[in-house]
Amino acid sequence: MATGHSATQRSLTMDAVWDIYHEDLEDIESHIHRHLNAGTPLINEVAAHILNGGGKRIRPLLLTLCARLTGYVPKDDLVLGSLIEFIHTATLLHDDVLDEAALRRGQLTAQRIWGNRASILVGDYLYSRAMQEFSSFENHDMNETMAVACRKMAEGEILQLAANRQPLIPESEYLRIVEYKTGALVAAACKVGAIRGGASPAQQDALHQFGMALGIAFQLADDRLDYMAGNTHLGKTPGQDLLQGMVTLPLIHLLQQLPVEDRQRLVTTIETGALDAHHLARLTALMHRHGSLQYAGNRSRDYIHAALVNLDAFEDSTAKRALTVVAEYMINRDR
Amino acid sequence: MATGHSATQRSLTMDAVWDIYHEDLEDIESHIHRHLNAGTPLINEVAAHILNGGGKRIRPLLLTLCARLTGYVPKDDLVLGSLIEFIHTATLLHDDVLDEAALRRGQLTAQRIWGNRASILVGDYLYSRAMQEFSSFENHDMNETMAVACRKMAEGEILQLAANRQPLIPESEYLRIVEYKTGALVAAACKVGAIRGGASPAQQDALHQFGMALGIAFQLADDRLDYMAGNTHLGKTPGQDLLQGMVTLPLIHLLQQLPVEDRQRLVTTIETGALDAHHLARLTALMHRHGSLQYAGNRSRDYIHAALVNLDAFEDSTAKRALTVVAEYMINRDR
Repeated sequence: MATGHSATQRSLTMDAVWDIYHEDLEDIESHIHRHLNAGTPLINEVAAHILNGGGKRIRPLLLTLCARLTGYVPKDDLVLGSLIEFIHTATLLHDDVLDEAALRRGQLTAQRIWGNRASILVGDYLYSRAMQEFSSFENHDMNETMAVACRKMAEGEILQLAANRQPLIPESEYLRIVEYKTGALVAAACKVGAIRGGASPAQQDALHQFGMALGIAFQLADDRLDYMAGNTHLGKTPGQDLLQGMVTLPLIHLLQQLPVEDRQRLVTTIETGALDAHHLARLTALMHRHGSLQYAGNRSRDYIHAALVNLDAFEDSTAKRALTVVAEYMINRDR
Repeated sequence: MATGHSATQRSLTMDAVWDIYHEDLEDIESHIHRHLNAGTPLINEVAAHILNGGGKRIRPLLLTLCARLTGYVPKDDLVLGSLIEFIHTATLLHDDVLDEAALRRGQLTAQRIWGNRASILVGDYLYSRAMQEFSSFENHDMNETMAVACRKMAEGEILQLAANRQPLIPESEYLRIVEYKTGALVAAACKVGAIRGGASPAQQDALHQFGMALGIAFQLADDRLDYMAGNTHLGKTPGQDLLQGMVTLPLIHLLQQLPVEDRQRLVTTIETGALDAHHLARLTALMHRHGSLQYAGNRSRDYIHAALVNLDAFEDSTAKRALTVVAEYMINRDR
C-alpha cells in the first residue's frame, strides 16, 4: 500500500510511481469494471471498449495522490477515481462523435463500431451514472466541484466550436478554452481528492490550482504534439487538429511572426477550409523556423512550474513527490 | 398568485390552470432566460431556439403544482422548474441528433441549423449547468432524485436503441423503456416539487409514483399518436417512429393478433429495414381493424388512473385539482 511506503527516496521515476501505487490503480480498475456492470449489454460493450482502450488513469491517480497528500487512508478515494474516469470517458465518447475520428489510441473509435447514437447515449449514461454515484457521498463541496467542472468542460468544447477555423483568436481566448475543456476536470480530480483527504479550504484551493495548471500544461503539450513530425504511432498524422479547424498555440504564435501578406494568405486558407496536406507541410516547416513549437513547449513548461508552486505548502511525502513526477510525465509522455 | 387563489371551484379546465398559474409560469420563463445568459453566444442561440420552440413547460408546471400541493409558498420552486426544463431541453437536443429529425414542433431542429456538434455540446452544457444549479440547493434528496432520473433517461434511450427494429420485444420491455426514458424525468419533477414543499417521505414517494405513471401515460399517448392519421400539423407523418425502427405498443399489440404467417412476414420486413410507406399504410389499417390503437389508448388511460390514485391522500386544493387537469391534458393534447 502507498500509505505504508517509505518516504526516504529523494526522487522518483514514473515507473516507480506506477509501482508504488499499483494496488491503488488495480483497485481503481476493479471499481471501474464493477460500476460498469449496467445490466444493459450495449452500455457494457461500448463503455468497456473505450475504458479498456489503454488510458493511463492519470486523473484517478491524481485524485488518489491528492487524497493521500492531505491525509486520507481508507479506499473510498479509489471509487471516486473510477467516477472521474467515467466522466473523462463520457467526454471521449462525445469527442469521437464530434471529431468523426476513426481512431483513438490506435483502435477504432466506438463511434466507428457502434455509431453516433450509441456513442452519444453511452456518454450521457456514464456521465449521469457518475454524477449519481458522486451524489451518494452527500458531500456538497464534492457535488459542486464536479458539477462546475462538467459545466466548464461542455462550455469549453462550445467555445472551441465557436472558434473553429478562426486563426486570429487571441492567445488568451485559446487558453480559456484549454482551461475549460481540459483543466477543469484535472482540477476537479485533485480537489475532490483533497476534499476526501480532509484538506483545509486553502489546501483544497491549492490542489485545485495545481490540477488546473497541470491540465492546461497537458493540453498545451498535446496540441503541440499534434504538429510534431513522426508521431504516426499515435494513430494520427501531424496537423490533424488544424485540418479539423482547431486553432492551437503553435499556429497562434506563428501567425504573429509572419509578414502581413503571408499571414493574411494563411488566415484565408484556414478560414475557407481550403487547407490541405501540402499547406500543412509548409506550415509545420514555418513553425520550426519561427520557433512556434519551442514557444508552445515553453508555455506548457511554464504551466507545470506554476502548478508545482501550489505543492510548496505541503510537507514532503511520497505522495507529494509522486505528484511532481506525474506532472512532468504529463507533458513529456508520447501518450 | 396561485397560493392566494380561491379553491372553491369544483372542477377546472386546462385553460383555467394556465390562467391561475400564469404568474408562476411567467416567472419560470424569466428564470429560463436569466439562466440562459451564458456569455457564450452559440449556447444562447442554440438553447433559445429550442427553448422558445413552443414547449408547454409541463414539467415545470408539475413541479410547481407538487410544491404548492405540499405546502410551499415562496418562489424557489420556479427556479427549480426552469432547471427541469433545461434538462428536458438537453434531452431534446440529443434526441434530434439521434433521430436526425428535420422538424420539431413544426420548426427546423437545432441539429439542422447548427449541426451535430452544437446540438450535442449545448445539450451537455444545459444538462451540466442544471446539475450545477441543483447542487447549489445543498439538498441531498434533490441531487439524488435528479441524478437518478438523468441516469435512467440515458439508460432508457440506450435500451430503446438496443431494441431498434426488434418488433418481438415483450410489452414489459417496452414499458421499461418508456418508464426510463420519459417517466423518470416527470417523476423527478414531481418529487423535487414535493421535496421543496416540505412533503413527508411518504408524500414524496406518492408524488414520484404519480409523476412516473403520468410520464408513462404521456409517452404511450405520444407513441399512439404517431400512428394516427391526419396529424400532419404536428410536423410528422404517421408511422414515423417505426420507419426509424422504434417499436411501440400499437405494433406490439398488433403482432400478437396477427396469424403466424402474417406476423412473420411483418417481423422480417421490420427487422430488415425494408419497411416503406406502402407497408405502413397497410399496417395502420390493420391496427385500426385489430383494435391496437384502442388498446394503446386504454393502456395510457390506465396509467392516468394509476397516477391519480396517488393524489387520494392529499386534501382537496386548487393545486390538487390542477394536477388532475394536467394529467388528463397530457394524454389528450394533440401536442
